[in-house]
Amino acid sequence: MNDVLQQLAATLAQRKQADPESSYVASLHARGLNKILEKIGEEATEVVLAAKDAQNSPNPEAVVGEVADLWFHSMVMLSHLDIEVDQVLQCLAGRFGVSGIDEKAARES
Amino acid sequence: MNDVLQQLAATLAQRKQADPESSYVASLHARGLNKILEKIGEEATEVVLAAKDAQNSPNPEAVVGEVADLWFHSMVMLSHLDIEVDQVLQCLAGRFGVSGIDEKAARES
Amino acid sequence: MNDVLQQLAATLAQRKQADPESSYVASLHARGLNKILEKIGEEATEVVLAAKDAQNSPNPEAVVGEVADLWFHSMVMLSHLDIEVDQVLQCLAGRFGVSGIDEKAARES
Amino acid sequence: MNDVLQQLAATLAQRKQADPESSYVASLHARGLNKILEKIGEEATEVVLAAKDAQNSPNPEAVVGEVADLWFHSMVMLSHLDIEVDQVLQCLAGRFGVSGIDEKAARES
Repeated sequence: MNDVLQQLAATLAQRKQADPESSYVASLHARGLNKILEKIGEEATEVVLAAKDAQNSPNPEAVVGEVADLWFHSMVMLSHLDIEVDQVLQCLAGRFGVSGIDEKAARES
Repeated sequence: MNDVLQQLAATLAQRKQADPESSYVASLHARGLNKILEKIGEEATEVVLAAKDAQNSPNPEAVVGEVADLWFHSMVMLSHLDIEVDQVLQCLAGRFGVSGIDEKAARES
Repeated sequence: MNDVLQQLAATLAQRKQADPESSYVASLHARGLNKILEKIGEEATEVVLAAKDAQNSPNPEAVVGEVADLWFHSMVMLSHLDIEVDQVLQCLAGRFGVSGIDEKAARES
Repeated sequence: MNDVLQQLAATLAQRKQADPESSYVASLHARGLNKILEKIGEEATEVVLAAKDAQNSPNPEAVVGEVADLWFHSMVMLSHLDIEVDQVLQCLAGRFGVSGIDEKAARES
């Protein structure tokens, strides 16, 4: 599981160059940043709804699927802006930390 | 970078048991699922704003910071519902895949 | 312009009973509350994007259209839950006021 | 109830000129468009959460309060961009209409 995000990032970089007719990822890039950000907004709402539904009736698969969609489209956006996913992981490691979460940094966010 | 999410998940599991007075993560759990989901909605909007601002004036650090916040609070939600982050990574590996993105699955989402 | 929302609410109440095959509003009710709330999340993101784009290049029509969509789907949700739009207007009148906005109430939100 | 939005718009126009130290509305304008849009994103999520909670246990007051907050901050944004709320009402009247909702226009959105 350890390098799934890096492998996904590599695949997304390839797909960025693909034919928008045959690749969902290429079609998102072709439609532009706003379309990609709309997807992030949609998927965030779907995460919220899946988590609320799971509160009443546990359904981890649905929650997992929506979080995966949200992170996936976050990574398409990073790819669109030529930002490496490792920067996000470094940020998480640095701020929330391997040796203890930097709670103050988080609280100020 | 490869096990940052797993290390963060372990730290979040510890913090879930901490004193809400001294731990930001514990305070989110104490305030409940709605509060955690509000943070996901807020951070998604901040990702959108940072990406739009980066379109005019590249600022990868700001985008990275907001994506890190969004993923961090996604992980607090998973922890709240006792869901493993590895399930999200497995889902990403399975659907979007190591050996080629399953574009149809994504397109139907 | 003064009773547009009331007239729209009356139309929405009629459409709630219509055939989901021929009415967009009826189709939203048939698909359920989650679908209506997904639309609110989507339209909120589109408002954000239209406003950001208008910051660079004024385009009031685009902003107006997205706010109309957001409010429209808010009203479909109210209709779904059998809540009158006049309650929202009363709330706005009471909290933010005809004779001066109750700033404290707003600040605490 | 018929001119609440117009009266609120007039009040918001006044407050736009007020001291940010003493007026919540003026403080939003001073902090800028991103801050106002963050509030729209937050309030949209709170509408979603209140509606989901109302599904289990009817609580129209909570839903009404969150929709009022969402519309209020939409109107602060319109004021920030010097757009009249009557344009939104005209758009709603024209597209979804007094004499029958233009379902096609809505379906394409």
